[in-house]
Amino acid sequence: MTDTMPGGPAASAEEGAGAKPYFAFHVFVCTNRRPDGHARGSCAARGSERLRDYMKVRAKELGVASARINTAGCLDRCELGPCVVVYPQGVWYRVQTTDDVDRVLTEHLQRGRPPSDLMLPP
Amino acid sequence: MTDTMPGGPAASAEEGAGAKPYFAFHVFVCTNRRPDGHARGSCAARGSERLRDYMKVRAKELGVASARINTAGCLDRCELGPCVVVYPQGVWYRVQTTDDVDRVLTEHLQRGRPPSDLMLPP
Repeated sequence: MTDTMPGGPAASAEEGAGAKPYFAFHVFVCTNRRPDGHARGSCAARGSERLRDYMKVRAKELGVASARINTAGCLDRCELGPCVVVYPQGVWYRVQTTDDVDRVLTEHLQRGRPPSDLMLPP
Repeated sequence: MTDTMPGGPAASAEEGAGAKPYFAFHVFVCTNRRPDGHARGSCAARGSERLRDYMKVRAKELGVASARINTAGCLDRCELGPCVVVYPQGVWYRVQTTDDVDRVLTEHLQRGRPPSDLMLPP
């Protein structure tokens, strides 16, 4: 499995807490799949793999800078999925459609205005 | 694939940038595996899957609070692996041994002093 890195890493990134992040936006898409019928469901069962694939392609198409879209194992918020978390901002989303993906990419990663209506409840 | 959540989520976490993070320490361990002989190598080829498994168990044993240890796809720093990144602090590590895992857990996640000698170069 490979992951895309649209825009490349932040230039001259320095390591350590408080330093400029290596990726300005490090996006993790849960692709955990539980057995059919599991009470919690799972992000993959709700289509997250397809949305992850779309997000990688779309981020490149949009030319999103210093972002990386990554696959992740279970983020443990299964009932609310498909779950996406964007670090270092620590913003969690439910991303159900390709339109939702577009909104996270353009509103949060490009314009710096995270779409609150897509965020997970506390 | 399931991931463990030692200590449970941060209490009364609020969503959105600047809010208290859902996990005080969200750890992503790259388990990407490239074909044998690939020029970049890969974290899995350097033993990251075993170290990820150990980290999950060890975090529970140590009672690390509000942390989650997650599997991740390729973090694109393959040559420096096995790679681990801890968010929201955004600290990157090369974790080669179970002793390294213990140091990240105890020094960074428990004592708040990230071990600089394990950090990735810029």
